[in-house]
Amino acid sequence: MKSYLMENGVKVFRYGEPIETGIIQGKMTATELNADLEIEFKKNNSSINLLLSPEDIVYGLGANLGGINKRGRTYESYCTDDPSHTEDKTKLYGAHNFFIISGDVSRGYFIDYPSMIKYDVGFKKTDILNIEITDENFTIYIIDGKSPSEVTSKFLTIIGRAYIPPKWGFGYFQSRWGYKDKGEILDIYNSFKENDIPIDGIYLDLDYMENFKDFSISDERFSDFKEFVTDLKKEGLYLVPIIDAGVKVEPGYDVYEEGIKGDHFCKDINGDPYVAAVWPGKVHFPDFLKDETQHWFGSKYKLLTDAGIEGVWNDMNEPAIFYDTKALDEAIEYAIESKGKNLDIHSFFSLKDKFTNLANKDAYYKSFYHLLGDKTLSNDEVHNLYGFYMTKSANLGLTKLLENKRFLLISRASSIGMHRFGGMWTGDNSSWWSHLELNIKMMPSLNMCGFFYTGADTGGFGGNCSGELLTRWLQFSVFTPLLRNHSAIGCRNQEPFSFDEQVTKNSKNIIKVRYRLLPYIYSEYMKAVSQYELMFKPLAFEYGESLAKETEDQLLFGNELMLTPVHSANQKGRYVFLPEKMAEITLGSESLEVEIKSDKIHYMDYGLENIKFYLRKNSILPLVRPSQNVKNMDTSMMDVVAYVDEKAHYTLLDDDGITYDFEKGEKFVTNISIEWKKDDYEINVSNNNSSVKELNFKVIDSRGNMTVKKINL
Amino acid sequence: MKSYLMENGVKVFRYGEPIETGIIQGKMTATELNADLEIEFKKNNSSINLLLSPEDIVYGLGANLGGINKRGRTYESYCTDDPSHTEDKTKLYGAHNFFIISGDVSRGYFIDYPSMIKYDVGFKKTDILNIEITDENFTIYIIDGKSPSEVTSKFLTIIGRAYIPPKWGFGYFQSRWGYKDKGEILDIYNSFKENDIPIDGIYLDLDYMENFKDFSISDERFSDFKEFVTDLKKEGLYLVPIIDAGVKVEPGYDVYEEGIKGDHFCKDINGDPYVAAVWPGKVHFPDFLKDETQHWFGSKYKLLTDAGIEGVWNDMNEPAIFYDTKALDEAIEYAIESKGKNLDIHSFFSLKDKFTNLANKDAYYKSFYHLLGDKTLSNDEVHNLYGFYMTKSANLGLTKLLENKRFLLISRASSIGMHRFGGMWTGDNSSWWSHLELNIKMMPSLNMCGFFYTGADTGGFGGNCSGELLTRWLQFSVFTPLLRNHSAIGCRNQEPFSFDEQVTKNSKNIIKVRYRLLPYIYSEYMKAVSQYELMFKPLAFEYGESLAKETEDQLLFGNELMLTPVHSANQKGRYVFLPEKMAEITLGSESLEVEIKSDKIHYMDYGLENIKFYLRKNSILPLVRPSQNVKNMDTSMMDVVAYVDEKAHYTLLDDDGITYDFEKGEKFVTNISIEWKKDDYEINVSNNNSSVKELNFKVIDSRGNMTVKKINL
Repeated sequence: MKSYLMENGVKVFRYGEPIETGIIQGKMTATELNADLEIEFKKNNSSINLLLSPEDIVYGLGANLGGINKRGRTYESYCTDDPSHTEDKTKLYGAHNFFIISGDVSRGYFIDYPSMIKYDVGFKKTDILNIEITDENFTIYIIDGKSPSEVTSKFLTIIGRAYIPPKWGFGYFQSRWGYKDKGEILDIYNSFKENDIPIDGIYLDLDYMENFKDFSISDERFSDFKEFVTDLKKEGLYLVPIIDAGVKVEPGYDVYEEGIKGDHFCKDINGDPYVAAVWPGKVHFPDFLKDETQHWFGSKYKLLTDAGIEGVWNDMNEPAIFYDTKALDEAIEYAIESKGKNLDIHSFFSLKDKFTNLANKDAYYKSFYHLLGDKTLSNDEVHNLYGFYMTKSANLGLTKLLENKRFLLISRASSIGMHRFGGMWTGDNSSWWSHLELNIKMMPSLNMCGFFYTGADTGGFGGNCSGELLTRWLQFSVFTPLLRNHSAIGCRNQEPFSFDEQVTKNSKNIIKVRYRLLPYIYSEYMKAVSQYELMFKPLAFEYGESLAKETEDQLLFGNELMLTPVHSANQKGRYVFLPEKMAEITLGSESLEVEIKSDKIHYMDYGLENIKFYLRKNSILPLVRPSQNVKNMDTSMMDVVAYVDEKAHYTLLDDDGITYDFEKGEKFVTNISIEWKKDDYEINVSNNNSSVKELNFKVIDSRGNMTVKKINL
Repeated sequence: MKSYLMENGVKVFRYGEPIETGIIQGKMTATELNADLEIEFKKNNSSINLLLSPEDIVYGLGANLGGINKRGRTYESYCTDDPSHTEDKTKLYGAHNFFIISGDVSRGYFIDYPSMIKYDVGFKKTDILNIEITDENFTIYIIDGKSPSEVTSKFLTIIGRAYIPPKWGFGYFQSRWGYKDKGEILDIYNSFKENDIPIDGIYLDLDYMENFKDFSISDERFSDFKEFVTDLKKEGLYLVPIIDAGVKVEPGYDVYEEGIKGDHFCKDINGDPYVAAVWPGKVHFPDFLKDETQHWFGSKYKLLTDAGIEGVWNDMNEPAIFYDTKALDEAIEYAIESKGKNLDIHSFFSLKDKFTNLANKDAYYKSFYHLLGDKTLSNDEVHNLYGFYMTKSANLGLTKLLENKRFLLISRASSIGMHRFGGMWTGDNSSWWSHLELNIKMMPSLNMCGFFYTGADTGGFGGNCSGELLTRWLQFSVFTPLLRNHSAIGCRNQEPFSFDEQVTKNSKNIIKVRYRLLPYIYSEYMKAVSQYELMFKPLAFEYGESLAKETEDQLLFGNELMLTPVHSANQKGRYVFLPEKMAEITLGSESLEVEIKSDKIHYMDYGLENIKFYLRKNSILPLVRPSQNVKNMDTSMMDVVAYVDEKAHYTLLDDDGITYDFEKGEKFVTNISIEWKKDDYEINVSNNNSSVKELNFKVIDSRGNMTVKKINL
């Protein structure tokens, strides 16, 4: 074991010979520490026990079930494609090994290790957080701070700045597995226009491919793809096609042939390309851990960028495996042996389980190999890096192909570290109210682990959504940077116009509010990412009240807002805890109401027709008029709502939204300050390159007095 | 169609030639009605559309997912064994076709029809409740009332009085699939005694049987069963064995042989006994719809009663079918054909689904037949009566065998009508917080459908329970008449002493509170059942406030209490809505605290160590000292807590708890009245046959003044 100090004071404990994951970006100092951790090295794993006092909250662990406070459950870090996210599941698609134990002081832990880690967060024993790491080679980073915010900031700093999508990536997106051809995509888009519902893009699921082949476009269903993409883009509508991890085994298919020729595929025990079966049947998995393979696969996105595509989603990259030939053959043999027998509970379930459990078996991940530097490692040993490096590969490719143009890139599987290369969605959720609640609770945990361009499939991917659930979900997800309504084939159609008229009307209004909020959301995104702060914060990150610590369905959003979404059926409102006096904002596509609420518990009426949230004291929120898409957004005229007793300041960050020129200082900055001076507000607006010309202010004070002012620049 | 009036004003609409289900007990008058319903008779079903106004609440539908208000979902009535009760499921184990549309007026509907009914309660269209009945032969009962309470009472009256268990059935019960032998049962019982945790019985799951054969007892694991049962019963501990619906096909096995000889089994299309496979492999299903079969199967319980058993649970009586030979052979053939093929998404899932979907196929239920009177009907046509008539069979048998002694009898599958013959548990739930919430919301719906002796598996059957979840669950389920902690083999042990010391301590305290409340719970049970009133009531049944109508996690219990259980993790309390001033009661095994709370919303602190609930104004709650079991309960000394401003009255009903003599008037009645007279409370207690000798009163008034008094009789 060796221990070091990092530049920002983070302590590093390095055990054995850890695999180089490429996650940590922060700099190590030469200072060696004379310290160790209490780790029990056992035969099959390394075990760490951390004491929890009764009042401690455990934050973090990214994409996982459970609440903001992770206590009382077990978790596993092992990227897994399991679409049934029931309460008892211990792992989802991501491996996010950062958590904070927060009590009188806060201490963060990051375990840099790419295979299975198991967490028991006070489940077996209430006061013990137990961690089991599968072997004895790993690095633990310990981050101390006075508050969880401080710890989080230090951690976000050492893992490096998160991915920044183009501004159109902050629009509303529609998606469905099952939009079968160009005609249907156009119909969907036209329905948005006819219903006057803003939209910035449509995701293309597997349906656009030829026989589920990566980097192929169905001639029959998507002929003249380039023209199609280009025409839509002119109107401001982006198509975002899917790419899977597995490459179809098919002699003559260019990607397959190149992969074989370039030795790009993971190997089996015999050194032959490993065969697994996914969508197209048999596939090989590119060995994304190899630099050459990253570059090769990344370059293949050219087929899409040549057609005008500027965004993709990487899927099935845990990697998901439906079966491998050996396991399938075994199952079939078992079935043959069972023929004619009188199977009782034991023998019957043995047979059934052979087929039911074919997907994603542990054995598969132990039976194929990567080349990392000069080491051959089983996928199991580096399992959690696969989606990360696929996304890095796409990022490298797209960066080269699109030059200075930003692109939309999200992935299903992820590890911390991937956040620098792309965003993520939270995977194949369901049209369940509990998954809306999960979406709410997961957002701060994802931010803590570096993921900012993220969100859940609004309305739920699997299952049939009700109009009420879609509406309630939108009321929350209009705040998530990634806003996508996605549903599975065979389920009820989930576009905002596929329900009652009332649902269409309400959804339209709510999505338009997203576009009203977009400058603020974009500005807060850029600040969070560049200043290493959370965009979605638990109340307890800023408020010390006991109730703040256990409130899990209210979130601070940016520095100005508190969100209080409704997440259960047949409700006309919800209980809200106000840790301090706040202004309740009711926002419609054309309307804006403000009312001061006292610092106590309330029952807030919250209907389906608009958005409600809270504006904190001495805070300013800028809004624009809703537009059909980001391209057509007009920021010359703004509404500004503010709650000011003494003084408030807001810096609205903007840029071209398209290129990386903002990194060279090409920013549009609007500074707004409001101060109460004796008998009136003094408002100052400075405009640095921004297009803002006219601002209409509504300023309220704690007594509820409203001042209306207009400022022209 | 013919329409009639019932004696209590219920309207009856009889379409076609309905199957005689035996559900309705109320008397028809000779009055024919000149009325009809708007029913659309289609090719494959009969369809009814009922208009819902925005404010209407839909109550009822018994054992189903969703909330107290059933709007926004679809449901199916078709008893089904599906242990994964995720939010999207449309059917559980029961078929409870009674619901109320409650707005300015309330109207109840009961559909007397024993096969599939589908409900869309404002899911596809917000304002339409659509019902699809599979054919055109059914009876609809329409019950009008000013309030949902009035409608419910009328309905409960026409379906007849609910089953009444012995008083020991109101104790705490432990259960687990996997208690392998007598030794383990004894260990469990001894641990309860060592830990001083009250218990009245242990359920025996399949483990006690010989090769899963009904009415067999493993010689190896449960030798000298009678002695075992009798010894435990002497101490007040009852064993409650399971009986399954399917009878193992095994020549020489008496139940099988008698069934064949007596022609008691359901037939296949060729007239041979139908073969399905369940736990023991191949089984036949008794045709419980035949009187002779009911009596024959009922008489078989003698094996158990002869050993001293006084309670059983009927399981797998939807009936659950793992597979039938035809479907299994087809699946195996399909597997053989798939051998060596490169299966893509479509062909692979076709194969996998062949095995995954083997259980409980629609086709099975259409391929075996019952004899009802002189009609041969497929199980599908009378599907929902199967569990009902199995339980009726057990009831008839046990009544004959045990004579005037009451017995504990519960069933997994149920239909309205079965409530007269036995109770039910809510089936194979999971150790999920959402299933605790479901338990809370389901109780009033079950009561509305006639089920009073009911409850969920506390702590959850499947999956691993946390100590916190068990504790929170107990805090609610100590109010449910059926209180059973049950868990599945392979899951974490779930006895109150299988967790932290703190969990043991808290569980003990909470279970002891159950025993303190037992006289009240028993009294309220007897009142609810005999007066056709709900024991668990939605707030909106008594309070008109808008918030009462949408509050789904607070329940009125009896006429005196309001329950406000905590049902999420890591919470120190919860929001509570008090529609009027109430007394907050904090009850431990030895402690009792009372505090007046004003009529508004509160955040209630609710720890894990005791029970909290609310006592309504001018109400009285009697309590006893906790005992080790019901047998040892001492009712001579009572604590009485009351919240009285003017006057209050409580009638405590009691009886021997063992026989049916209460039906002949053999009741023990204690009348307690408290009245504020100028400057003191006047307390009167009359004692009719009851053993109550000493009462210690704590009476609080709205200003919080406490009066303590003792009364000796």
